[in-house]
Amino acid sequence: MATEYGLTAIGNAIVDVLAHATDDFILSQAQKGMNPNTMNLIGAERAVELYDLMEQATEMSGGSAGNTMACFASFGGKGAYIGKVADDQLGRIFAHDTRAIGVHFDSLPLIGGAPTAQCLILVTPDAQRTMNTFLGACTQLTEQDVDETLIANSQVTYLEGYLFDEPKAKAAFFRAADLVRKHNRKLALTLSDPFCVVRYREEFKNLVQNHIDILFANEAELKELTEMSDLDKAIESIRNKCDIVAVTLGSQGSVIVTKDETIHVKAISPKELVDTTGAGDSYAAGFLFGYTEGKSLAECGRLGSLAASEVISHMGPRPLVPLKSLL
Amino acid sequence: MATEYGLTAIGNAIVDVLAHATDDFILSQAQKGMNPNTMNLIGAERAVELYDLMEQATEMSGGSAGNTMACFASFGGKGAYIGKVADDQLGRIFAHDTRAIGVHFDSLPLIGGAPTAQCLILVTPDAQRTMNTFLGACTQLTEQDVDETLIANSQVTYLEGYLFDEPKAKAAFFRAADLVRKHNRKLALTLSDPFCVVRYREEFKNLVQNHIDILFANEAELKELTEMSDLDKAIESIRNKCDIVAVTLGSQGSVIVTKDETIHVKAISPKELVDTTGAGDSYAAGFLFGYTEGKSLAECGRLGSLAASEVISHMGPRPLVPLKSLL
Repeated sequence: MATEYGLTAIGNAIVDVLAHATDDFILSQAQKGMNPNTMNLIGAERAVELYDLMEQATEMSGGSAGNTMACFASFGGKGAYIGKVADDQLGRIFAHDTRAIGVHFDSLPLIGGAPTAQCLILVTPDAQRTMNTFLGACTQLTEQDVDETLIANSQVTYLEGYLFDEPKAKAAFFRAADLVRKHNRKLALTLSDPFCVVRYREEFKNLVQNHIDILFANEAELKELTEMSDLDKAIESIRNKCDIVAVTLGSQGSVIVTKDETIHVKAISPKELVDTTGAGDSYAAGFLFGYTEGKSLAECGRLGSLAASEVISHMGPRPLVPLKSLL
Repeated sequence: MATEYGLTAIGNAIVDVLAHATDDFILSQAQKGMNPNTMNLIGAERAVELYDLMEQATEMSGGSAGNTMACFASFGGKGAYIGKVADDQLGRIFAHDTRAIGVHFDSLPLIGGAPTAQCLILVTPDAQRTMNTFLGACTQLTEQDVDETLIANSQVTYLEGYLFDEPKAKAAFFRAADLVRKHNRKLALTLSDPFCVVRYREEFKNLVQNHIDILFANEAELKELTEMSDLDKAIESIRNKCDIVAVTLGSQGSVIVTKDETIHVKAISPKELVDTTGAGDSYAAGFLFGYTEGKSLAECGRLGSLAASEVISHMGPRPLVPLKSLL
């Protein structure tokens, strides 16, 4: 049956606050629990404290699955997004940017509660990003926000592992998974972050084996999930657990793994490597755009590489040029 | 007498919302009163309407004099800023960015009134910017916000012509001018925008002749002020009205005019011309940094060109690399 949407994504709706930082600064924050190059959850007080220490910043709409949807739409794909912002200035920015690029977004904003989520992103000279997320309104994403009509009308529903960090959002995650099965659609998951995998390893293992059709993971996440320090062994361990697994390897490209195939995909070098924020999100978008258009897995991977090469060539997690212009 | 600050600036404290736009889109908004490549004042309703029509955007702290202070501090200059934000998310962004680059900023935010000002900036393929400003909290900048201690302790006080657009801000402007005279400091003014000059021509003429030590204007603004369509005649007409006049000429550089001298300064080509937002603001910053450091007028102009070349090489009105690293 034809669907109205290629992709519906559910995630934490976040506005990014991006600034440059030195390696020394990142090191100085280790005592506050900051892990370099990963996503760190922080509370409201710590968010104020850290922001005060940051250099002048740029604000851009972000959120892992939100970035994926923006890239998917930028390729020309039709899609929808489900996520919870607050009824505040940052929430209006997120909603504007998501709709402006052509993504259907009508999740009700939270009124009178926590503010819209912010991610304080520190970009170091090596172009790596250390994320510090205050979830704010995202903690109030609930099962009621999961619109069955959207999922029924999407070829693929895409979930971010980050949703597991809040009980209500996690319930929304499973509600979405149930609806995907009910309507006989495909379910995709990104493991999001190695520390996120550590926090929920057993549940993710169970999910991947029993519910997920397409899994996205980077090398560190896959190794954490499989508890194997050797990449090849980790790949063999996941091969039969899930129809399609796409493992991103940074400048080494990606590997797409199915029961019968192992496809190596080259990375595409960016004009200039500036900020890796959104690299994985954009790869997933390119891959899923190809997938929903019926392309070969190798071509899906190539589209992932293409999207990532644009996004890492500038500050911020979403493309600055229409990705369809690069096709 | 030595001063604590080189420069104190007073202006409309604004967060920029920057997006790309086509020439056709700008043309389509002419019926709504949008003049291309200038600053258009808009109300709250029109701001919502226009934002809905804009592409996905990036938010960065802006405001003409705010940009000038950010550049001045980026050169290593010590300065202060006076302007009115609201006690909201955008106001906290403006305050953070201003302080983070080292500018003293302690103007009290407006509580319970209009939101922080926003400027919806449309950047066309020719890198020109069309600005649409909703002044919000800026309309409540008053004489009480003009801190005499700051002005007494600054070599130069810098005012933006845009302040004339609101009666209270205009009163603050004249209060600052009086304090500069009282403390025997220097007063600098930017004419801001050709339409702004048209709105207040006679008052600006009087100001320039009787109060201003250093005047900044671009070609269009100078022609409007002097009501002369020939640049050379306009320059001769202004020569004896003000100690120093710096006229910016885009890619043609600038001309610095005093009673006895006419100094032509070359532009410095940017790596890539992306967005001219903030070009004039950054030129004034470089010029005034040189001036407060006791440099020759030619060198002041060169520093202006240097700052502008950095700012126009990327989206957004403030430098992305420390300007002192370019010295």
